[in-house]
Amino acid sequence: MKDKTLFNKLHNYKSEDIYPFHMPGHKRRGFEAFNPYEIDITEIEGFDNLHNATGLIRKTEERAAKVFGADRTFLLVNGTTGGMLSAVYATVNEGEVLLMSRNCHKCTYNAAVVAKVDTEYLYPESEGDFYGAVSPELVAEKMDANPRIKTVVIVSPTYEGIVSPIKEIAKVIHERGGILIVDEAHGSHLHFCEGFPKDGLSAGADIVIHSIHKTLPSFTQTALLHVGSNRVDTERLKSALTIFQTSSPSYILMAGIDRCITFLEEEGKPVFSAYVKELKGLRVALENLKKIKLFKMEHSENGAGYDPGKVVLLTRGTNLSGANLMTILRDTYRIECEMAGPRHVIAMTSVMDTPEGFERLAKAVIEIDKSAEIESETGSFLIDSPKKRHPMWKTVTLPGEYVDIASAAGRISEEFLYLYPPGIPLIVPGEVITDELVANLDRYRDCGLEITGFTGAGMGLIKVVI
Amino acid sequence: MKDKTLFNKLHNYKSEDIYPFHMPGHKRRGFEAFNPYEIDITEIEGFDNLHNATGLIRKTEERAAKVFGADRTFLLVNGTTGGMLSAVYATVNEGEVLLMSRNCHKCTYNAAVVAKVDTEYLYPESEGDFYGAVSPELVAEKMDANPRIKTVVIVSPTYEGIVSPIKEIAKVIHERGGILIVDEAHGSHLHFCEGFPKDGLSAGADIVIHSIHKTLPSFTQTALLHVGSNRVDTERLKSALTIFQTSSPSYILMAGIDRCITFLEEEGKPVFSAYVKELKGLRVALENLKKIKLFKMEHSENGAGYDPGKVVLLTRGTNLSGANLMTILRDTYRIECEMAGPRHVIAMTSVMDTPEGFERLAKAVIEIDKSAEIESETGSFLIDSPKKRHPMWKTVTLPGEYVDIASAAGRISEEFLYLYPPGIPLIVPGEVITDELVANLDRYRDCGLEITGFTGAGMGLIKVVI
Repeated sequence: MKDKTLFNKLHNYKSEDIYPFHMPGHKRRGFEAFNPYEIDITEIEGFDNLHNATGLIRKTEERAAKVFGADRTFLLVNGTTGGMLSAVYATVNEGEVLLMSRNCHKCTYNAAVVAKVDTEYLYPESEGDFYGAVSPELVAEKMDANPRIKTVVIVSPTYEGIVSPIKEIAKVIHERGGILIVDEAHGSHLHFCEGFPKDGLSAGADIVIHSIHKTLPSFTQTALLHVGSNRVDTERLKSALTIFQTSSPSYILMAGIDRCITFLEEEGKPVFSAYVKELKGLRVALENLKKIKLFKMEHSENGAGYDPGKVVLLTRGTNLSGANLMTILRDTYRIECEMAGPRHVIAMTSVMDTPEGFERLAKAVIEIDKSAEIESETGSFLIDSPKKRHPMWKTVTLPGEYVDIASAAGRISEEFLYLYPPGIPLIVPGEVITDELVANLDRYRDCGLEITGFTGAGMGLIKVVI
Repeated sequence: MKDKTLFNKLHNYKSEDIYPFHMPGHKRRGFEAFNPYEIDITEIEGFDNLHNATGLIRKTEERAAKVFGADRTFLLVNGTTGGMLSAVYATVNEGEVLLMSRNCHKCTYNAAVVAKVDTEYLYPESEGDFYGAVSPELVAEKMDANPRIKTVVIVSPTYEGIVSPIKEIAKVIHERGGILIVDEAHGSHLHFCEGFPKDGLSAGADIVIHSIHKTLPSFTQTALLHVGSNRVDTERLKSALTIFQTSSPSYILMAGIDRCITFLEEEGKPVFSAYVKELKGLRVALENLKKIKLFKMEHSENGAGYDPGKVVLLTRGTNLSGANLMTILRDTYRIECEMAGPRHVIAMTSVMDTPEGFERLAKAVIEIDKSAEIESETGSFLIDSPKKRHPMWKTVTLPGEYVDIASAAGRISEEFLYLYPPGIPLIVPGEVITDELVANLDRYRDCGLEITGFTGAGMGLIKVVI
């Protein structure tokens, strides 16, 4: 079979010896194989109904709630996207404002557009080339300044592994009568790893969403939505999940979630201990890098901390961009990583990684580090708060026109622009395009990074408000 | 393995000899088995990105467009639900009204709620116990009476197989500057079956959505959205699809779509001819039923017609309810059907059905017919147009209270009530509850049918506007 079709290419790829330091967390090993056609059914007698679960699907949800420590858990088959659309739709009321950390995934921005609610942003602390933790003081300040804020969304851990002080943030929000939604897409494993920062549910979040396909052995597109307190109207949430998730949910995906829960119940602790030990070994092996640096962060007193499951390699101060490093790892060492930022690469690990995989990664990075060259540093790639002129949802209804991106500074964007991955927007509809942004787009392109989201991208055009 | 978990029950079910006259269309046979974990990847180099497809996924979409005769086709991994949410969101503008046939699936109602647009309804002709075709004259009348109507959604074929005169309907709509969306969830096979009514794309629809998992060999939750004309703003549609579909789409689901397309390209015509022949054979075998009746409908001059792939067994005038018949087929004959209405059962067929399957069905129905008894007929189960007081999207924001359903006549519902399947609402938010509706709910329950949607269902309560 040649690589002519998607299925054939996927089929052929599995026999190539490329090690996956990327999602999904089952690392293509997973559990015992099964024929997906044989178990792919519909809601026939005895197989329950995701949208009105009372039988085996409900039982899977209850087992998931128990193993993660939630009051109530819902299975998600449209990813964290479907969960976030539902969570925002079911918690924010007309006239309220959604407070969200600026490094939220695009699905949270889309959720605000769909719900037609205005947004304010929490700019997290900077960790050099990416965003760090959200500060509880900033949350308090924003909520005190605008009493229309009731629902807050933060992403923790970040794509790079930075965990915010959720306990303190939750306290601040609850004191003000609000609700905290934690996008814990990248942290489904935290609850099971000794010595890792606390997970959102344990720290008091009201809603936590887990992309279990990212760091646990479950299929891509599967996720869980947990309710952690009685501040959430569960019936309203359930209705929203029925809106944003297909009425023909895949039993393959749901069976994959079920198997993941069984794995956590039956094999949990010892397997995760071995994983934590492997991660420590990897960090020791990479301690003496000379030019490339392994990102690390001390746990702070207020509960902020770091998820060592994310192996973030910093190329700042070397002759390598993130994209360069990722390409060398792929082409020379047969290692595929999760993503490259302008000056960093993320190798995403999971409990299903093998000692051989960790060894291959350590050996590769040490070798690349030896041949890397030192170069003078360049400025930050982080964008400072663009000015907002209109709410996102309103902007997308205004008449627009396409203009050359090079001469768009000063205009109001009608589009999202993101670096993909991770899909964090550089600018959102209703914000003013700055010279700095335009200059940064060129720098991103020079680093070989992809900018997506704007419809005229291929022609260098961006849609702006007339 | 006991049936303790969802996966185990699915695993065990496959070895039971129960013949599936229900979705999915691959009939659990599908194609050559593969290990789903091995091919389940993420958007790594060379594997394209569903939301910005330029490589192999784009090529699959182009192949799909060619085989179905569309201008542009998008792969859907959140079912027809995700496609309908996107299609309505991307075509209806602020202040416009969505005209939809009353037998639309709940995802279309949800799409109107999410887009916050008001709705008007096309009540299809009655075919006794279920809705029939939509008349072009009614579409014209509605559009002429309300110039705010631009987008029209109809479902064709219906769950029971009735195809509307799409060519005439499209003409009426296009003459008035509107757009026609056809929910062809149940008709993905029409295009390939000689002698069947024309499919939506061939008949001039602007957007057609296919639940390819229903009647073609593709996984549950997979679907296609086709654009058939340049009346559709494809960029706006693409943005909407990015909102309502996960940013982590399953490569298992997409590979399943890809294999279905390959099947249509390579095996198409002869396999479908054999299928059409089998269906004819089945209809001949069931011609002489004495009490149960096989639903049939002549093709009409205006293009309305019937999809013989739906085997609808009518129990009206017998001592059997739809639920009774479905249970006997399951328990005595090991045949699982798609759904039971109050007085009918749908056996859903596909090109993957076997001659043995058709034979088992014919034999079973003939035997059941022999022992069935004649009983006097009762009235219709169809509900006549409830009166609308508020738009749906507005109603769900109004303060509500729970009241006993038995004494709710005259109040305005804040909820959807449906029979599931097929998920067609009996009443929607903003409509007045009638005595007839309350009485019908009792009759449905007596027939063993499930009424879902309303949150207080278990306690006999319904949420109404205060």
